[in-house]
Amino acid sequence: MKEVDEFERLRDELRNFALERDWGKFHSPKNLAMALSVEVAELVEQFQWQTEEQSSHPSPEVLSAVREEVADVLLYLIRLSDQLGIDLITAADHKIALNARKYPTGKAHGNNKKYTEL
Amino acid sequence: MKEVDEFERLRDELRNFALERDWGKFHSPKNLAMALSVEVAELVEQFQWQTEEQSSHPSPEVLSAVREEVADVLLYLIRLSDQLGIDLITAADHKIALNARKYPTGKAHGNNKKYTEL
Amino acid sequence: MKEVDEFERLRDELRNFALERDWGKFHSPKNLAMALSVEVAELVEQFQWQTEEQSSHPSPEVLSAVREEVADVLLYLIRLSDQLGIDLITAADHKIALNARKYPTGKAHGNNKKYTEL
Amino acid sequence: MKEVDEFERLRDELRNFALERDWGKFHSPKNLAMALSVEVAELVEQFQWQTEEQSSHPSPEVLSAVREEVADVLLYLIRLSDQLGIDLITAADHKIALNARKYPTGKAHGNNKKYTEL
Repeated sequence: MKEVDEFERLRDELRNFALERDWGKFHSPKNLAMALSVEVAELVEQFQWQTEEQSSHPSPEVLSAVREEVADVLLYLIRLSDQLGIDLITAADHKIALNARKYPTGKAHGNNKKYTEL
Repeated sequence: MKEVDEFERLRDELRNFALERDWGKFHSPKNLAMALSVEVAELVEQFQWQTEEQSSHPSPEVLSAVREEVADVLLYLIRLSDQLGIDLITAADHKIALNARKYPTGKAHGNNKKYTEL
Repeated sequence: MKEVDEFERLRDELRNFALERDWGKFHSPKNLAMALSVEVAELVEQFQWQTEEQSSHPSPEVLSAVREEVADVLLYLIRLSDQLGIDLITAADHKIALNARKYPTGKAHGNNKKYTEL
Repeated sequence: MKEVDEFERLRDELRNFALERDWGKFHSPKNLAMALSVEVAELVEQFQWQTEEQSSHPSPEVLSAVREEVADVLLYLIRLSDQLGIDLITAADHKIALNARKYPTGKAHGNNKKYTEL
């Protein structure tokens, strides 16, 4: 008996959610990309005046807000990928392999330079 | 025998990736939120001069670029959540339940208004 | 008698504003860039579910919100430039000249391609 | 003899620039807001792995890149405001007055809290 993959389950729930509300007409990739950028900014807002150190030890209020925002980002990301027929996990695996080539452990060690400058 | 969850697998691969490169010092939530916003903008860039209709039928080149960008967004999102001990799937399930209450199917039908204005 | 330039006047008002509130310590370029991105997202939010046509004819409520957001963007942009000693007008003039070379009127006519693809 | 205001001059140059290239059809407020967010992200990218301290003392290469990006942000901001008939300077003056009320010098002194939490 196959377990349902969590990504597929979320994708299907979001499909139904939009269908039940007749929101398909609003969910063009262009609009979803905009919505995604707005949710990410709500995440950035939590940290904008904090030091890096503070951001690593958020208050319960900040952590709770961040939890909601990362969820929003994930939901729009899954919805956008679904609208374009992109398999997120496959795409992520492909990108990790690509990054491993772009940032070999030796050259990239302790280094924040972009791969084009390594 | 439990299948490994795909999210957990990706999270662990990203942990190792950062560890092998000694990148932990760069990966404060503040910095990761910034990096996330930059990746989302690279996604937005693909659609900024397109019509909604065009964004729904991307060329192979655009689709390929979008696939890379959604992967980048997912990877930073998983990494950020990991740094703060947030379980993304649990957070997403919680948010879907919240959204279902904020946007009841009747009131929200075919409507793009924010829940505060419904 | 020289008129005071509007940019310089706003820059000086923002300097005083920050000084009177002892906000200099928060106004690193890194933080100001984050704040700028958050304000721009609040602008994007106004248009995310609208068609392009609707965005060209905003309701009085949307227009009023947009007016506030573009102001916020300008204020953070001036503040950030001031912190780095950048003269915004000179930089803008330089960029217009650069764009004129990147997008010659013939090739770019009616075309939304990036200069690297023209 | 009236000096030409720098904002008005830039606005008029951008109008001509778009007109000569027949770009008006791409310049809906929706699209321009997206383009603005992309330019801001290119600015954020310069600082994402830097400490706040490093961002205050950028290398000549970073400073040069930042100069270009703030110019891009200003140009799109002026163009967007023009498309919606918004006077940027008036809007900015209005916003400064509003902020002065939201953040009284006493309460806001040395404090990075949002006005709703002061």
